[in-house]
Amino acid sequence: MSAVIAGIPNLASASEIETATTKNSTQKSTQSIQHLEPSSWWIGMKHPEVQLMVHGKNISELTPHINYRGVSLRKVQRSDNPNYLFIDLHIAENTVAGIVNIVFKSGDKTILTHNFSLENRRPHSASRASFTPSDAIYLIVPDRFANGDSSNDSHPDYSDKLARDVAGGRHGGDIQGIQQHIDYIANLGFTMLWPTPLMENAMAVNSYHGYAATDFYKIDPRFGTNASYKELVASAKQKGVGMIQDIVLNHIGSNHWWMKDLPSNDWLNFPKKYTETNHIRSTLQDIHAAQSDKKKFTDGWFVKTMPDMNQGNPFLANYLIQNTLWWIEYADLSGLRVDTYSYSDKEFLARWSQRITNEYPNLNIVGEEWSMNPNIVAYWQRDKLNHDGYRSYMPSMMDFSVYQALHTSLIGDNGKPADMMSMYDAIANDFIYPHPENLTIFEGNHDTPRIFSALNQDIALNKLALVMLATLRGIPQMFYGSEILMTSPTQRDDGKVRGDFPGGWNDDKINAFTGEQLSSAQKDMQDFVRKLFNWRKTEIAIHQGKLIHFLPENNCYVYFRLLDSGKETRKIMVIINRNALATELDMQRFQELLQNANSARDVMSGQTMPLAAQLKIDAKTALILEVK
Amino acid sequence: MSAVIAGIPNLASASEIETATTKNSTQKSTQSIQHLEPSSWWIGMKHPEVQLMVHGKNISELTPHINYRGVSLRKVQRSDNPNYLFIDLHIAENTVAGIVNIVFKSGDKTILTHNFSLENRRPHSASRASFTPSDAIYLIVPDRFANGDSSNDSHPDYSDKLARDVAGGRHGGDIQGIQQHIDYIANLGFTMLWPTPLMENAMAVNSYHGYAATDFYKIDPRFGTNASYKELVASAKQKGVGMIQDIVLNHIGSNHWWMKDLPSNDWLNFPKKYTETNHIRSTLQDIHAAQSDKKKFTDGWFVKTMPDMNQGNPFLANYLIQNTLWWIEYADLSGLRVDTYSYSDKEFLARWSQRITNEYPNLNIVGEEWSMNPNIVAYWQRDKLNHDGYRSYMPSMMDFSVYQALHTSLIGDNGKPADMMSMYDAIANDFIYPHPENLTIFEGNHDTPRIFSALNQDIALNKLALVMLATLRGIPQMFYGSEILMTSPTQRDDGKVRGDFPGGWNDDKINAFTGEQLSSAQKDMQDFVRKLFNWRKTEIAIHQGKLIHFLPENNCYVYFRLLDSGKETRKIMVIINRNALATELDMQRFQELLQNANSARDVMSGQTMPLAAQLKIDAKTALILEVK
Repeated sequence: MSAVIAGIPNLASASEIETATTKNSTQKSTQSIQHLEPSSWWIGMKHPEVQLMVHGKNISELTPHINYRGVSLRKVQRSDNPNYLFIDLHIAENTVAGIVNIVFKSGDKTILTHNFSLENRRPHSASRASFTPSDAIYLIVPDRFANGDSSNDSHPDYSDKLARDVAGGRHGGDIQGIQQHIDYIANLGFTMLWPTPLMENAMAVNSYHGYAATDFYKIDPRFGTNASYKELVASAKQKGVGMIQDIVLNHIGSNHWWMKDLPSNDWLNFPKKYTETNHIRSTLQDIHAAQSDKKKFTDGWFVKTMPDMNQGNPFLANYLIQNTLWWIEYADLSGLRVDTYSYSDKEFLARWSQRITNEYPNLNIVGEEWSMNPNIVAYWQRDKLNHDGYRSYMPSMMDFSVYQALHTSLIGDNGKPADMMSMYDAIANDFIYPHPENLTIFEGNHDTPRIFSALNQDIALNKLALVMLATLRGIPQMFYGSEILMTSPTQRDDGKVRGDFPGGWNDDKINAFTGEQLSSAQKDMQDFVRKLFNWRKTEIAIHQGKLIHFLPENNCYVYFRLLDSGKETRKIMVIINRNALATELDMQRFQELLQNANSARDVMSGQTMPLAAQLKIDAKTALILEVK
Repeated sequence: MSAVIAGIPNLASASEIETATTKNSTQKSTQSIQHLEPSSWWIGMKHPEVQLMVHGKNISELTPHINYRGVSLRKVQRSDNPNYLFIDLHIAENTVAGIVNIVFKSGDKTILTHNFSLENRRPHSASRASFTPSDAIYLIVPDRFANGDSSNDSHPDYSDKLARDVAGGRHGGDIQGIQQHIDYIANLGFTMLWPTPLMENAMAVNSYHGYAATDFYKIDPRFGTNASYKELVASAKQKGVGMIQDIVLNHIGSNHWWMKDLPSNDWLNFPKKYTETNHIRSTLQDIHAAQSDKKKFTDGWFVKTMPDMNQGNPFLANYLIQNTLWWIEYADLSGLRVDTYSYSDKEFLARWSQRITNEYPNLNIVGEEWSMNPNIVAYWQRDKLNHDGYRSYMPSMMDFSVYQALHTSLIGDNGKPADMMSMYDAIANDFIYPHPENLTIFEGNHDTPRIFSALNQDIALNKLALVMLATLRGIPQMFYGSEILMTSPTQRDDGKVRGDFPGGWNDDKINAFTGEQLSSAQKDMQDFVRKLFNWRKTEIAIHQGKLIHFLPENNCYVYFRLLDSGKETRKIMVIINRNALATELDMQRFQELLQNANSARDVMSGQTMPLAAQLKIDAKTALILEVK
């Protein structure tokens, strides 16, 4: 965080930086090291090289030397900023862990030294398991989930202090708060936790959301420390909950330490004149798109406080790739979620996703591509044969089309009535994806209105949404608080959508962790979610079964999950009756799957019921039947 | 049309037919020939075989013989109906044209003989030219365009007589009427004519539309004769207008002669119990679709009066393939349009499209797949790499997505305001298609509300639609009467959409062919269309140029058509200002294409204008600029 060149304001214009750089290189001054990243690396990575970014006054004047068995210095590179040096190390397979001493010399004279740590990997690190369709993801906004340590609510080094009454202020939630409530999440039936980013966000306002990183290697002290994060991951894992880290490759916060002394003139896009992205992601696929529109999409900034990185710079590309690998290895992650995926440089994204999945072949990564057009989302999924030959290696993507359909089918859209055909049509598009079963489906997230509010606070509809979330193909992700009917404005309103979870603060009267003071409707929904997702946890027909769906009739959508393992056939029939009236189902329509089965177990009630020629489904009711 | 077995009513149930067939085969009776199809074939086809369908009382008891140099009888096959015989002939390359005498024998005894005609093809028949993006298609409903011969308005053999005051009745239009007005169509700037089907439709009602064929080899006498049709094609061609024939592969009319004596028990789908199609075309691509929904889509009938053919029957498949080839060769067609494309058996469609394009490599065929989902349409286009390996050979498809966007962008949809982003988004999806430039775009057709009505009778908007039709990528198709602002209800209403073209009937007071009594608005629009499409006829940048479009700003959509032929660069800039206010365009945005051009010719006014830094476009106005 220390400023190498004093007097360069944040968001320095490129011309200012150039002047400063020139000034600096003509000054005679001692050299120093302000940053050396990454601070450590591992032995036995498939890609045996690591590139160190060294930042410090006039560091480029020095020459680094290393003398460590198995570690060779392959290349030393300089940028157009004399305060940076990039050192490529090669780490042989049989290298022994230890401290590598890097000596920076001027001629024969040692000017500076720095310790770099070489570590052993955990056993089976490369082949680690990850999230799959047998998992369910619980998404939290750490600042808003639980305040486990009130001593870190504000921090002397950071200007954005605790302000619980401000929607965009810090509310005090932290890693210790999550740690304390892992049991709650596990008991609800969730097996993966995705917290929005925990990296340092030394921003003046809105720092709580974490998407404006100011240090890529440091957990924000108001959340905890790198060590406490690592402990959280370890103890969550012991309780059956894996950690999915939220990665931002596209932008940094405008208070990132780089901004005071950019590593090169081309480190950022549009460095001279603020230009905002047009958000038109289709420009990347569109064979007719104007070059200027393409450029504006990829290179334009998200907002003024989030400078857009130019991943076309190879040092920056390496930096980002290594940073991701570092956190996987350091914290023992179970997966990744990537923010604003398509906004980064496309060729970089191909390399990034290839490198990560090459190191961890089973690691699942879910990208956010906020488009309702499945063609645009499918473009990024691994194995998609694209028209332009583009190859991506992303195993999963967020399924915005099904998200939209969940809402449209249940509540309608723009004056069109609710119609289960919306969901049928969305699922019918699965042929567009190379791996539809590995898409991540969700009922809402930190950027959307809360589902209960979006569904006009209709509890019956809310249950239909959750049943679809738990039983359709893909990996379900639920937003914290949906289980207790948390509300929000129905138009996007970030600070309010990300409400404080009741019970997360010491003085909370309502405590959703214990159930204290919850309304009976909230308790009922919490029980419903707990039952649903705990059942899902072990139902292999949901994890691996084929999905077969039937054309909705009378606004009633019926689908099956079918698993024929050779030994056993498991068959789940799901009925979503969106009709405001009770509906008689002609079971003959489903004979190709029912095959004269005569009874079924109602999963939610536990009751066994006969399967007659007709089945009456109550209004706005879902049934999950285990067909015998 | 003669009934072979008396007493079997139309739409005979399969059980009735079975009984009748059995009865028939046990009767002792003389044999006869009622139908032998095709009645002629050609020498020198790439596929040198033709299969004759012979229909007549107990014809299967006889054995056919042929003695004609170069023609060999390869196979004789029988179905489960003794009144049918299928004869496979092979025609050697060097065969001489003439009459082939087919002798039907019982043992050594000749019972019947039949003359089959072998003809020479026109020169270059196989390599004939077809419609391409340099063409513009004029669609007419023959019964409603012009009545050239009032003597055939009604016909003694057909019960559906002239009834001009009935929306679904016959109005008298015919081939001679078209013949008389080819000049009008050519002068408007159109180079292709697509009439809705002219085949015999011996139906009790609604026979005028032609989609319920009762004889696949016969022009309906109320339209004309096979010979007059052939003459029409020849004389239109001389005037620069090619003929696109409308083909129906999916269904027949319930009064088709087959229905009185079905060629086999499996000739129709759902022969025993009337089952309607569900119209869910996505079942064909959908990896999750229930088998029963798939079957219902493909095998279900369109309506009760249109029995659904089972093209899985190889005799029927051959029959349909040959019928198409026959008309191309007989009438000298320039292209095909295929009705209800995806409703036929999928594997058959692959074979059909392969066979036709194999015989005529340049022939364009446009299929109707009425889906707004470009993935479903693209599935059928030649060279699409489909998820299921399905290979289609259709060169063109109707572009319903752009049709929808034309309306949504100009007039809005479901309460959403008009927004040129709809068109931008539709065009941005072109990466889904293997050949977007060969899609057929349209402003409306015989099944949709008329565009002038759909656009709230707003003449300015109507012009914007026509400019987009004429300048976007693809092959434009206009519905007859759009040039004179013909109206219709805004909800689908077939009989009214297909209104009588003024001037087509002798006693018409208004005559759009001569301009007599047209309102000034109609005349203005007719001039507009004439100018636009005559310009388009020779503008190679529109025919072959790349399309580059820019993100709409202020509801103003700008795109270029750019052709760099090596010798010359042609550059057309199209500006569609949907804004209700005049809009200032910042021309700097388009520099990647304008490249400091300083003047342009306004195509519609003919004026040359300077290109300054700003360009003011009037409200709801389109500009087509030839950039100098």
